[in-house]
Amino acid sequence: MSLNERLQGMTNQDVKQLDRAHVFHSWSTQGTLNPLAIKSGEGCRLWDFDGREYLDFSSQLVNTNIGHQHPKVIAAIQAQAAELATVAPAHANATRSLAAEKVLAHAPKGFEKVFFTNAGADANENAIRMARAYTGRDKVLSAYRSYHGNTGSAIVATGDFRRVPNEYSRGHVHFFNPYFYRTEFWSADEAEECQRALHHLRRVIESEGPASIAAILLETIPGTAGVLVPPKDYLKGVRALADEFGIVLILDEVMAGFGRTGQWLALDDFDVIPDLVTFAKGVNSGYVPAGGVMISEALNRYFDDHFFYGGLTYSGHPLAMAAICATLDVMAEEQIVENAARIGQEVLTPGLQRLAQQHEVIGEVRGLGVFHAIELVEDRQSRQPLSDAAMGQIKQHMLDAGVLPFVANNRIHVVPPCIVSAEEAQQGLAVIDEALSALKR
Amino acid sequence: MSLNERLQGMTNQDVKQLDRAHVFHSWSTQGTLNPLAIKSGEGCRLWDFDGREYLDFSSQLVNTNIGHQHPKVIAAIQAQAAELATVAPAHANATRSLAAEKVLAHAPKGFEKVFFTNAGADANENAIRMARAYTGRDKVLSAYRSYHGNTGSAIVATGDFRRVPNEYSRGHVHFFNPYFYRTEFWSADEAEECQRALHHLRRVIESEGPASIAAILLETIPGTAGVLVPPKDYLKGVRALADEFGIVLILDEVMAGFGRTGQWLALDDFDVIPDLVTFAKGVNSGYVPAGGVMISEALNRYFDDHFFYGGLTYSGHPLAMAAICATLDVMAEEQIVENAARIGQEVLTPGLQRLAQQHEVIGEVRGLGVFHAIELVEDRQSRQPLSDAAMGQIKQHMLDAGVLPFVANNRIHVVPPCIVSAEEAQQGLAVIDEALSALKR
Ligand SMILES: Cc1ncc(COP(=O)(O)O)c(C=O)c1O
Ligand SMILES: Cc1ncc(COP(=O)(O)O)c(C=O)c1O
Repeated sequence: MSLNERLQGMTNQDVKQLDRAHVFHSWSTQGTLNPLAIKSGEGCRLWDFDGREYLDFSSQLVNTNIGHQHPKVIAAIQAQAAELATVAPAHANATRSLAAEKVLAHAPKGFEKVFFTNAGADANENAIRMARAYTGRDKVLSAYRSYHGNTGSAIVATGDFRRVPNEYSRGHVHFFNPYFYRTEFWSADEAEECQRALHHLRRVIESEGPASIAAILLETIPGTAGVLVPPKDYLKGVRALADEFGIVLILDEVMAGFGRTGQWLALDDFDVIPDLVTFAKGVNSGYVPAGGVMISEALNRYFDDHFFYGGLTYSGHPLAMAAICATLDVMAEEQIVENAARIGQEVLTPGLQRLAQQHEVIGEVRGLGVFHAIELVEDRQSRQPLSDAAMGQIKQHMLDAGVLPFVANNRIHVVPPCIVSAEEAQQGLAVIDEALSALKR
Repeated sequence: MSLNERLQGMTNQDVKQLDRAHVFHSWSTQGTLNPLAIKSGEGCRLWDFDGREYLDFSSQLVNTNIGHQHPKVIAAIQAQAAELATVAPAHANATRSLAAEKVLAHAPKGFEKVFFTNAGADANENAIRMARAYTGRDKVLSAYRSYHGNTGSAIVATGDFRRVPNEYSRGHVHFFNPYFYRTEFWSADEAEECQRALHHLRRVIESEGPASIAAILLETIPGTAGVLVPPKDYLKGVRALADEFGIVLILDEVMAGFGRTGQWLALDDFDVIPDLVTFAKGVNSGYVPAGGVMISEALNRYFDDHFFYGGLTYSGHPLAMAAICATLDVMAEEQIVENAARIGQEVLTPGLQRLAQQHEVIGEVRGLGVFHAIELVEDRQSRQPLSDAAMGQIKQHMLDAGVLPFVANNRIHVVPPCIVSAEEAQQGLAVIDEALSALKR
């Protein structure tokens, strides 16, 4: 039977059964999984194998920024597939060169080249490698509230619980990033949080020994950790510290970049120019696996006459590159970044703030563009995170109502595709409203 | 101007210029690069942007096992793109389940699940992670003559020179694998090389402390290191040592697997059943980035009730999965594995041996299937590797004659696609013959 014939007749039950028989899943205990079966999609909608529709309020793993199945991007992938699906990274390929050109058009001033990778983790791996080679130093400083990917260095740069069983890389030091709602610095307000977080970072740098520190690696807006929009001046302050001590500043835009915040890059809102920018996800909405490192002038010049000790078989893969070219074109033509900004300002920010007025369980609303999170608490006084059981109920309620949510710890991340319409955004908010109301009873 | 319009008019010169302006390349000094521009391909043939044809004797990075642009695989990618390009790994998707089923059909007895990754490096990362979790031990033993990929643990597991500037992961120990032509064990013959290599490995295990060793990671046939086909009984001996000391045996089939040796997996020739098998490249010829870990029963059962601390955004990416399904179907239908075996036996092995009789510069011929290497030496007595300058001449001669070679150190790896015809294989050999003759003068 051909693949297509076998796929045609399948129900959710068939697919789940086959999945549980043969597929090993990320970040989980295999024996307890009950995955949702997803067959197809369009825009902000998905369908399972029984024809049930979902509104995608997760953008999968916060990556389908242009929504599902944008016809122009699908056509570009199909056209590149017809011409040349793969080529070794050592060769030159026009689609790859154009993808680099198009990515760099959205980079900060002074950025010159792109090193393409398969995903976000290896983008961070290679950015760290470049920083170490360039500085001749070892250590990488990153935040406790962060996620940078699952390979050797990226997972140890990561701050969250997933790092701990994986600490096999040396040279990593963590510090506390600003998070006023749960301040680590006994701050009285956002301004003090910013100032104290910078003081804390300076003290970590001084105590580690500045001459041992190759890089500071930060998500511009920590995403998985809870959409922790930093105080306005924090990243500028980090840049000043990096300059003072000759440290390379790497901003991880894997989740925050390419439209999510209502800007091309999240850093565009923060008046900061890093030395390296890592990206993946939104750059082509994950239609084909791809990531990369944008490289600024000084680092680029360094590698003109120093050997770069890094590489990968699929660096600059033509299908991924075609998807990047088409995605960036479509985002510009259809003003998708502007839509993300407008939906944030006009629907999500005010809508979630309205929900916070109605639901005591909402401790804080954070975010911008289509990158929001609501933090749910047992009570507003203690700010104790809402129980896993209650979070599970909310998630199930939303699924039952046909909305695919992104739930992390005690938070709902409100992260629809950047193309989401005001009506769809309202629909998602209404279902969150219902789910929180149902919880009360 | 649309992407297609811009691509249409481009010459080699345009593409190279755009490449050197914007693209940062793997494993190189950026300032000295002069990449070949590759536009399109079909079967074992490639074309540049000026219409010049090349016979691909490299399979790019030894990955296009079914050749370029197999119409059925391209059609499967295009069809999946039309249905659903991407989905989060937490969801179940039928194409992914079928890809796992099809991969497992070629796994050794007792293998139960597949964890999909983006490539070979992260396949090894996650296999190492599984072995560490399962054994509760830290150390990973791997060979000095090996390449396992470029991320944190994979690059430190790697044996070759690329490891040294990247040693940021702990828990890695290296040993010498068998390589009779340049024995590390003062062996008199292949049988002694095998026995001494196993004795050496036992002594390393005993000296490191068996209870500290999670895994032995080996390429079934070390590829980049020189197509070092191990003595017949070596891997069986390694399996016995792993069993004796409770160590997980991981075989890396990223380059050797899926047809390259004239078997579905290279391990099929060696009467050995590992605990984990890593793969990438040939599984879908790299048409879409993908890799994975095949998991045997005991490890699979362990993770039924233990949390797996690993994951990645594009695990089981639908486009990659569609390419795997179609590639494995096509390989079976068109007897591509059998072709690789026959070309090896009938053309490459005898043809290269004939060249060795004619060219003093050939120190050794090794390999099977479409996985051969010739080792070039200054003279057969000293076995001193042929100079880089001479290797450069050979490479240039082959390129000028329209054959794209795979040159590594003092070796030519003879690694055409598994679909190569006898005529094409002969053509490639004839050009190697010419290039070596030109060298003499
Ligand atoms: C900020 C950030 N960096 C890196 C990564 C890792 O990306 P990938 O899973 O593609 O390796 C992620 C994934 O969620 C991320 O959110
Ligand atoms: C045996 C082996 N393992 C792992 C890898 C790494 O694969 P990737 O470059 O896809 O990460 C390679 C790549 O050449 C390889 O040959």
